[in-house]
Amino acid sequence: MRIDIITVLPELLESPLDHSIMKRAKEKGLLEVCLHNLRQWAVNAYGQVDDYQYGGGAGMVMMCEPLAKAIEQLKSERSYDEIIYVTPDGTTLNQGIANQLSLKDNLIIICGHYKGIDQRIRDHYVTKELSIGDYVLSGGELAAAVIVDSIGRLLPGVLNDETSALFDSFQDNMLAPPVYTRPEDFRGWKVPPVLLSGNPKLIDDWRYEEAYRLTSTKRPDLLK
Amino acid sequence: MRIDIITVLPELLESPLDHSIMKRAKEKGLLEVCLHNLRQWAVNAYGQVDDYQYGGGAGMVMMCEPLAKAIEQLKSERSYDEIIYVTPDGTTLNQGIANQLSLKDNLIIICGHYKGIDQRIRDHYVTKELSIGDYVLSGGELAAAVIVDSIGRLLPGVLNDETSALFDSFQDNMLAPPVYTRPEDFRGWKVPPVLLSGNPKLIDDWRYEEAYRLTSTKRPDLLK
Repeated sequence: MRIDIITVLPELLESPLDHSIMKRAKEKGLLEVCLHNLRQWAVNAYGQVDDYQYGGGAGMVMMCEPLAKAIEQLKSERSYDEIIYVTPDGTTLNQGIANQLSLKDNLIIICGHYKGIDQRIRDHYVTKELSIGDYVLSGGELAAAVIVDSIGRLLPGVLNDETSALFDSFQDNMLAPPVYTRPEDFRGWKVPPVLLSGNPKLIDDWRYEEAYRLTSTKRPDLLK
Repeated sequence: MRIDIITVLPELLESPLDHSIMKRAKEKGLLEVCLHNLRQWAVNAYGQVDDYQYGGGAGMVMMCEPLAKAIEQLKSERSYDEIIYVTPDGTTLNQGIANQLSLKDNLIIICGHYKGIDQRIRDHYVTKELSIGDYVLSGGELAAAVIVDSIGRLLPGVLNDETSALFDSFQDNMLAPPVYTRPEDFRGWKVPPVLLSGNPKLIDDWRYEEAYRLTSTKRPDLLK
């Protein structure tokens, strides 16, 4: 899979993409993430990519021309499954969307900044608008990193243990059950005895019951 | 405001915290973000901070002792308003929570990895569990960066234009209206004439109507 990220702050994304799972996915050749500095398609020698918004008001808007040129150049080199714009008013990312996107070959992710991008780019180029949650960030870069991470870890071969992702929260619309590790007794706080029983059936039942209890208490909406 | 982040991958967070708004907040002395490598509280010379989970199954669990020691050391140095654990089964972050957290003085954020942290730390130390959305990431670091960014930009004086954050999506339970910048005509795609009218009343009305139309179409839940 290849993901092209168009941003005015490529350097912000360097360390998240160079560590942990993302690093492993790149080293194994399973995921290629290419950062493109939007300023290479700037409208003038000053590197301008944004301008005041029509109608007045605080905050700059990212201009059509640099974004259109960036997208067109990438599209001339390969075909893309989706051109994603990350924005608070997009569809909220969830595990189902991450699963779907992990099956694609080539994606473009556009990071907004300031007040966002000119609406005409959204109308004429963008094929999918995604939000990572109901809060505002100072730019789309962290949201892009979150999307890449949520997709990248699902690619077959990226996680060490193939079964691991299947037991994560949300994969079956349930939150994960509590986990414990050594020691059995930490300052008088003990591990639930069932986990020490060595009885796989009892342990499975307990985990299912705990997952159900936590989900129905904390997130009943997931069970609907 | 001070935020202490406990993580096994401090280097992953370097570039997000060193650019853009976060950089400005630090330079202005408005936000101090301290990264702590959990391995300095490891249980042995190999730097061990995780172990197999009781009851079996894929994925490692972060041990009690290093986390307990890290939290206790920080708490001995100052008092904290919240000890936050970022986890997919926490309360989902939204703009209201970001607003509330931006009023605090000292926060600890614990980043989970692998299958998460030993439940006893959640039961006895953590005061708030937050998720950034219904998807699984390879670790809590990006989620911590998102929380820090969503809070940091709300601190008075961080954004250049104090009025800017007030017009963001979600601050009034509405999505933001479309934005446009120069040129008026890009490849035949035109800016809505009202934005060129120079009439502030008409422009305000149009923006409100568009925000309402977008919200009721895309996110009717926000209007309830």
